[in-house]
Amino acid sequence: MRICFIGDSYVTGTGDETCQGWVGRLCAMERQAGYDVTPYNLGVRGQTSRDIAVRWHAETLPRLAGRHDGGVVLSFGVNDCTATAHGLPRVPHDESIATAQQILQQARQTWPVLVIGPTPVGRASPDDRTRALSHAMAGLCAQLDVPFLSVWNPLLAHPSWCAEIAHGDGAHPAGGGYAALARIIHGWPAWRKWMGPLP
Amino acid sequence: MRICFIGDSYVTGTGDETCQGWVGRLCAMERQAGYDVTPYNLGVRGQTSRDIAVRWHAETLPRLAGRHDGGVVLSFGVNDCTATAHGLPRVPHDESIATAQQILQQARQTWPVLVIGPTPVGRASPDDRTRALSHAMAGLCAQLDVPFLSVWNPLLAHPSWCAEIAHGDGAHPAGGGYAALARIIHGWPAWRKWMGPLP
Repeated sequence: MRICFIGDSYVTGTGDETCQGWVGRLCAMERQAGYDVTPYNLGVRGQTSRDIAVRWHAETLPRLAGRHDGGVVLSFGVNDCTATAHGLPRVPHDESIATAQQILQQARQTWPVLVIGPTPVGRASPDDRTRALSHAMAGLCAQLDVPFLSVWNPLLAHPSWCAEIAHGDGAHPAGGGYAALARIIHGWPAWRKWMGPLP
Repeated sequence: MRICFIGDSYVTGTGDETCQGWVGRLCAMERQAGYDVTPYNLGVRGQTSRDIAVRWHAETLPRLAGRHDGGVVLSFGVNDCTATAHGLPRVPHDESIATAQQILQQARQTWPVLVIGPTPVGRASPDDRTRALSHAMAGLCAQLDVPFLSVWNPLLAHPSWCAEIAHGDGAHPAGGGYAALARIIHGWPAWRKWMGPLP
C-alpha cells in the first residue's frame, strides 16, 4: 500500500532522534515483516485542522491518484486545542469537529481512511480540551463509519510518553514515546486489516 | 532548520527497511550531533522533473512560508531518463534541464537551495542517460550559483549501492545503500554550511 499520513508535528516525528517518528517506526515494522508499504509523511509542524483542510487533498492526489493501493491516515487536533495569548484555543472545538467532518467525508469517497486520535502532553492545558476533542472525533468517526483509534489512555499510562515530553521541549516526546505510539497502532485491528495478520 | 527534501523514490527512501532513506539517516546523524533540523520528506515515487515542477512550490509554502530557517534540497532525474516502451526517455534531456532551471530560478529567490545529483542503478539504461543528465545539471547549477553534489562516482564505487539494487527491485537499494548516500552528503561542505561543523 501507499499511504499518506496527514497531520501535525506528531506525524512528522518532531523530537525523535532517529527522524522516523511513529509513522516511520510503524512502517519499518511492517516492511521488516514482509508487508509492502510506502509511507508518505505529510505532517507539518504547528498545523491545526484549518491548515490541514487546505492542503490534504492537493498533497494526496499526486501520491495516490490512479492507484488501487492507496490509503489515508489522518491525525491532528493538539494544535487546535493549544491556547492563544488570550487563553482561547487556536481553533474552537465545534469548528475542529466540523472541519474534521468535511475532510473525512471527502477523503472516504476516494480512499480508505483511518483516524488516529490526538495525543496528551501531560498538562491540563491543552490536555483537557484535547481529551474532549478526541472523544468528539471518536463519535464523529463512528457516525461516518471511519475507524478511529483513541491513543489517549495508553499514552498517558506509558512510562515514556509524558516523561520524554517533560524532558524535551514540553510538547514532543523522543524516540521512546514515538516507538510506544507505533506499537499501539501496530496492533490495532483496523490497521492490521490494511497490512495483514501480525507476524 | 526546516528543510523540504523534494524529489522522487530515492528521496522517499523506497527499499529502505527502516523507512528512513538517506533523508532520515542524514538528519538523524545531525540531530544526534545536536543540530536542530526538521526534515520534510517530499519525495514521490515515479516522479520526473515535470511532476516535481507542478507541485514543489505548493508543498514547500505551507512548510516554510514566513520562516527564516527554511531550506530546499532537490534531487531528481532518474525517472526522466527511464526508457518508455518506445525506448525513448520519459523526459527528453533538454526538457529536464529546462525544467530544472525553472524550478531552481524560482526556488532560490526565496530559500537557500541545494541539489543532489541523480543516482546510478548499475545498468547502461538508464545510467548512460542519467550520467549525462547529472553532468548537465552540474553545469546548470554552476551557472545559477546553486551548490550541486554529484554522487555518481562515489555510489558506483560503493560496495552496497549497486549490489543492493541488483538484489532488490532492480531500481532501489536497501538500508546500506541509503546509509552510504547519507554519509556522502553528510560531509559535503555546502550541506555542512547549513548545519555547522562536523562533530
